[in-house]
Formats: sequence, structure tokens, C-alpha cells
Amino acid sequence: MQLSKFSHDMRPSPLPSLLARASHPEVISFAVGFPGTELLPRAAYAAAGAELLGRGGEPLQYSVPQPELKRAIAEKILVERGVHCRPEQIFLCTGAQQGLALLGLLLLDPGAEVLLETIVYDGIRGAISSLHPRVLAVPTDLEEGPDLAAIEAHLDAGARPAFLYVISDGQNPLGYSLSVEKRERLVELARRRGLPIVEDDACGYLTYDEPPWPALRSFDDEWVLYVGSFSKILGPSLRIGWIVVPEELIPKLSMLKHAMDCDTATYSQHLAAGFVVEGDFRRHLGSLRKEYGARRDAVIAALERHMPAGSRWSHPRAGLYIWLELPEGSDTTALLETAIDEEKVAFSPGFVYAAEGDEASCNHALRLSFGNLSVGKIEEGVERLARAVRRLLA
Amino acid sequence: MQLSKFSHDMRPSPLPSLLARASHPEVISFAVGFPGTELLPRAAYAAAGAELLGRGGEPLQYSVPQPELKRAIAEKILVERGVHCRPEQIFLCTGAQQGLALLGLLLLDPGAEVLLETIVYDGIRGAISSLHPRVLAVPTDLEEGPDLAAIEAHLDAGARPAFLYVISDGQNPLGYSLSVEKRERLVELARRRGLPIVEDDACGYLTYDEPPWPALRSFDDEWVLYVGSFSKILGPSLRIGWIVVPEELIPKLSMLKHAMDCDTATYSQHLAAGFVVEGDFRRHLGSLRKEYGARRDAVIAALERHMPAGSRWSHPRAGLYIWLELPEGSDTTALLETAIDEEKVAFSPGFVYAAEGDEASCNHALRLSFGNLSVGKIEEGVERLARAVRRLLA
Repeated sequence: MQLSKFSHDMRPSPLPSLLARASHPEVISFAVGFPGTELLPRAAYAAAGAELLGRGGEPLQYSVPQPELKRAIAEKILVERGVHCRPEQIFLCTGAQQGLALLGLLLLDPGAEVLLETIVYDGIRGAISSLHPRVLAVPTDLEEGPDLAAIEAHLDAGARPAFLYVISDGQNPLGYSLSVEKRERLVELARRRGLPIVEDDACGYLTYDEPPWPALRSFDDEWVLYVGSFSKILGPSLRIGWIVVPEELIPKLSMLKHAMDCDTATYSQHLAAGFVVEGDFRRHLGSLRKEYGARRDAVIAALERHMPAGSRWSHPRAGLYIWLELPEGSDTTALLETAIDEEKVAFSPGFVYAAEGDEASCNHALRLSFGNLSVGKIEEGVERLARAVRRLLA
Repeated sequence: MQLSKFSHDMRPSPLPSLLARASHPEVISFAVGFPGTELLPRAAYAAAGAELLGRGGEPLQYSVPQPELKRAIAEKILVERGVHCRPEQIFLCTGAQQGLALLGLLLLDPGAEVLLETIVYDGIRGAISSLHPRVLAVPTDLEEGPDLAAIEAHLDAGARPAFLYVISDGQNPLGYSLSVEKRERLVELARRRGLPIVEDDACGYLTYDEPPWPALRSFDDEWVLYVGSFSKILGPSLRIGWIVVPEELIPKLSMLKHAMDCDTATYSQHLAAGFVVEGDFRRHLGSLRKEYGARRDAVIAALERHMPAGSRWSHPRAGLYIWLELPEGSDTTALLETAIDEEKVAFSPGFVYAAEGDEASCNHALRLSFGNLSVGKIEEGVERLARAVRRLLA
């Protein structure tokens, strides 16, 4: 059968088979961006589900976005990030990933330019890949984030990118949060140059250090298009994310979304709205922050304890990811094989997050995702990883 | 903000505001393809949900497609359609609509040709619209379905369409089912000409007349790519559909799907698998067929009783849709306004299903969707509709 050129040319990733091996119960896996499901309010969902379905079958029907959920997101969720908007500016979608795909279609012409950091969440590249964008690379760093002068240089050279993609807090995979001063400069740049920014805030609700820094969208409601998600705070299987945009863009997003998958799961919308409105959402978020903060601390302490000299890692104040750079020349793709086989520990190798064609530049680094591991597992896992690293470097 | 040309050019549909008015409780609405939620096994879901979530949080996590669900679809669902496949040939997706979008990306190059009937489900046009296909029109009919000679003529003229889109049973919106003899001829044509067929079987499980006819996919497992869905039989808000394809295409679909929305809701997968494996799925399907069959009979009987001469309608042996053609020159878009305002009845106007640029050809027709209306409501609704029609024709 004749496939489209795009499908034909897709390169299969080596990751699925590695991750299948990493899912063995004896393996401690830092590989995937899983939240800890033991921290999710499953008893509340069970009770709410029984109550909802006892009343009638409507939660099983197709539906328009539930106004009470959009209100709850505006009033109880976004305020946690300093974002102020009306429910009419909120668009519900099937997780943050669909939000990225929707904004890609909304903004990006086939083959047009887009600004991405040289080390970037692979999901944004996937979300827009069928549009074959021309990626303009923005050098980045695990402490400072993107180089704003490089963005200006692209624009000065005549580039007209459809958008810049940014994770302001707990960048995936690097772990940095943009300083408040840099947020201000970035928003000033966006306004001055007319540059749309897609802010992916899927992990932004998990902040650990005081004071939390407000999302980029809190500094600008015109040029910053904001994507949020319940996946990390209420559970991935709800499959609910949201986009905050100027209200006139909502009908366009509705048409794009309808063509993708009709609507956002009605039953999940009811479960989420019920918990946010009637459950103790603030307390839930507080306990998530406390627990994930402790897990972050455990990773950092164990890295300090066990990692050989010449390594470097991020100290995230938000999110679920830590970037670990080994000495130049280390091969973390090869390391992953031996780490799984010999030490029963897994991670995500750096090449996954490199700009296309530039995988070698990240091959000495790796991403640790600590969301679904207890402090004890983290300590044991980092120790195992350090053993595998020392063997690699020997 | 500069939008993509595609988004910029999208025409807002007049339907959302009409449908909002049609959702008033006094309006009897035949407008939307809703199943009857009172027929869905909500008590079973509530019990299974409590049991699942009582055991642990894993049903809330991201996940790979559940093998037990794929096995259940192969062994208990597809056999109802005469389709035989291995679980490894089944790909789970977020409803049939995402299945169509995935197959579009899999097969269709931007700007390439595709074969669509002149009166066709609007969802397929939406699913592939961002690829800007060149649509080759296939004349169709509410009794006979697509004109196979027209397909051959396109191919003889040198066209190389990426696929033909077909609904074999209860076509949406026309209501026809392809005769078994025509299925055989169509599959013979596909093989002889190397023409992939996308078979959308979202309503094919709802068959009313004996014997049920097997799906097109049961005649060929190479050229027919099959799309199914739980939406009409277990509930739209599960957001689960599936594609049956040659196994070597599954890794491509996985990559495409991951970029769209990561995964298919884990919790829904558990609920669906539980009901199909442990619930009495065959009896459930039997009672759906009986009840929807009675609703179909009620629509037909009421149309015969009330519709003025010069009207014509389909007699579907499957699915949830009946196509009603009024005398040439009738304007069903205008009719919808007065039907809602004056008679409190709604339907879907014909232009929605016409090939792009050919909306006028369907404007004398309309689609009645009867899935979520009781027999009593159907009788009252068709009587109201007939009054509105007679006023239009007067």
C-alpha cells in the first residue's frame, strides 16, 4: 500500500522497545514523565462517578465543553499561576499534547518557520511534524534557558517564525525555570517584535520553592498562548488539557478540534469539575507540591552523593524533570542499554530532546523523571545509575 | 496575530448557534448523531469504576494500549461484523474521528487525490481538511450507494487517489447499506486497481434486519482499512475507537497518534474491557438493536403517515440516520430556522453533507438522526416536521 511521504519517512524510535524492557518490575525507571498515581484522588473519583452515573446517562454522551469546568479552571486553577482570564477564553482539549497540535494548525503554515530551543520537549516537535516546519534553533541552557539575543538575531535576519515555544517553569527536559526578570524581557520582546509565544505549562502547577513565579501568560494576554493540563495534577487518563487564548480564536480552535476527535470526554469533564469545585483542590495541590518537592530533593541529594566529578545537573524549582550532563563524549544511548541490563535502572537518553539532525550534541546528557518514584526508590535508583555511569567512564 | 492560511480561511459553520437553540428542552431534535444514553450500561460502569479505583491508581496513569481490550475487540466485537483479525492488527484511538484523521495522515500527501461520495459524512472531510485533498466526486444514492463505474472512470482517467472512503452499513447521512453483491464488486475493484478503502463502521454494529451483512473488511484484509468505535454501543464519552490494519502499519500509527494526544484514556480502556469481557455484551448489543430498530420503524411509519407527496426517504437496515429528500427547490437551511422557532423540531440540513462547493445540490434534503429519541418523541417530532414542511411548500 502506498503511504503518504510523511508516514513513509517517519523513523521508528528505538525507545519503545527499551521502555518495554524498562517497565520490568525490577527496573527503577526515571524514563517516562509519569506522575505518581498514588497521589491522585481516586477515592473521590470513584464516589463522584457512582453519584454521576446514578443520576443518569448524560455524562456518557457527547457534549460541548462544560461551562462549570471552564469556570473552575479560571477561578481555581489558573489563579495558582497568576493567570487571569474569563471562562470564554478557555478552550478544552484532549490533554496538553492536543493543545500543542491545535496551536500548530492554528498558527503554522506548512513549511513555515518556528523557534525552538536546541534542547526541547520532543512532544512539540511531534505535534507540528506533519506541517514540516523549518526549525530556527535557539541555544539554551539548563540554568538560564533560551538565549534571547539569538531570538532577536533570527528576527533581525528576516525570519518570520509562527511562534516561539516555551516552558517557563520546570522546562522539560532541562528543568530550568525562567527568572522573573527574563520573563519580563521575553514578553517585552514578543510585543515589540509581534512574536507569538506558545507557553506549555503542563508541569507549571508543581512548584516547590517560594515564592512561586507567575506563568509567562500572567505578563501578557495577547502574545502568549497558554497550554495547561490536568495530567500531572489530577491524572493523565482524564485526557483533559486547556488552552487560554484571545476569545476570538475559540471558534477556530473548535473547528480544528472537532475534526481531530469530536469532543473532550464528557465523563472526565464532570469528574474534574466535581473535584476542583467540591473537593479540596488547594489542599490536594499543596500535598502534591510537598511530595514532589521531597522527591526532587532526594534526586539532587543522591546525585551529589554518587555522581562522579565532571557531571552537572539542573536544580529545578518546578516540574518533574532533572537534566544530567555527563562528561563530553559520554554515550547515554549506549549507557541506557547497560543500565537496564546490568543495574536495572532506566532514564531517557538526551538525543530524544535534541533538535532534529543534532542528536549527537545531547548524547552525553540524559533526563531523569522522578514523578512516580518514592524517595527510597529514588535513592536506590540514582545509586544504580551512578554505578552504570562509573563503569561507562572507566 | 498572524494565523496559518488554513485556519484563517476556515469558514465558521452556521450550525453551532442553531444547535444551541435546538438543545432547548422543548425542541425535539433529530439534529445530532447522539446515541440514547438511557440504553448504556451506566450501572456496570459505576460498579467497575469503584472496583478499579479501589485497587489502585494505575487506571489513572498514561498507558500503552491494553492487550485485554484489543483481545476483547477481536474476539467479542469484530466477530459481530464478520471481521477476523489478530489483536496485533488492532490500533486503539480517541474515537472513530481520530481514526479517520490518523488514516488521512497515513495515506494522504498534501494536495493529493481522494475519492468521496457526493453526499458524505462531514467528519471525513474535516479529518483530512488540513491536508487540502483534491476530492474526486463519486455520485451516490440513498438506496444504491456509490456509483462504482464512476470510480473506475476516475482511475481510467489517470487519477491515483490515496483512498476511497466508505460506510458500508447505515451510511451517514444517507442511511443505505451496500448490498452484499456490491460489497463483493467493490472489493474486487479495490484489489484489481490497488485502491485502498477506508471503511468507517462506527454505526455498523447497529443492524436491524436479518441477516446482518458482514462488513467490507470481512471480504478483504489487505485493501480495506477498518475503523470502529465504542461511541454508539458503549458511550461516546469513553472516547475509544479502533483501526484494523495490516500489522506492519501499527508502528506508524503509534507515532502519528502519540503526536496527536499521547495515548487513549487508560481508565476508559479498563471500563470498556471490563464490560465486554465480563458484562453480557451480546445481550446488550441485542437490546440496542431491538430498541434502535423500533425507533427506525417509528420514523419510517411517521414519515409515511405525515410527509407530503414528492418526498422520498431511505429505509436503513442499520445505523442511526435517515435521509429525507423534499421536492426539488426546497430550502432545508431556511426550513431549519422555522422548524425550530415555530414547531420546536430540529434536524441537520442537507448542505452539511455535500461535497465542498456543491452545497446547493443537497439543500432540498435533510438528515434525521433518531438514536436518542423515544418512539413517542419520534412520532411527535415527525408530525411537527411535516407541519413545517407543508408550510414551506405552501
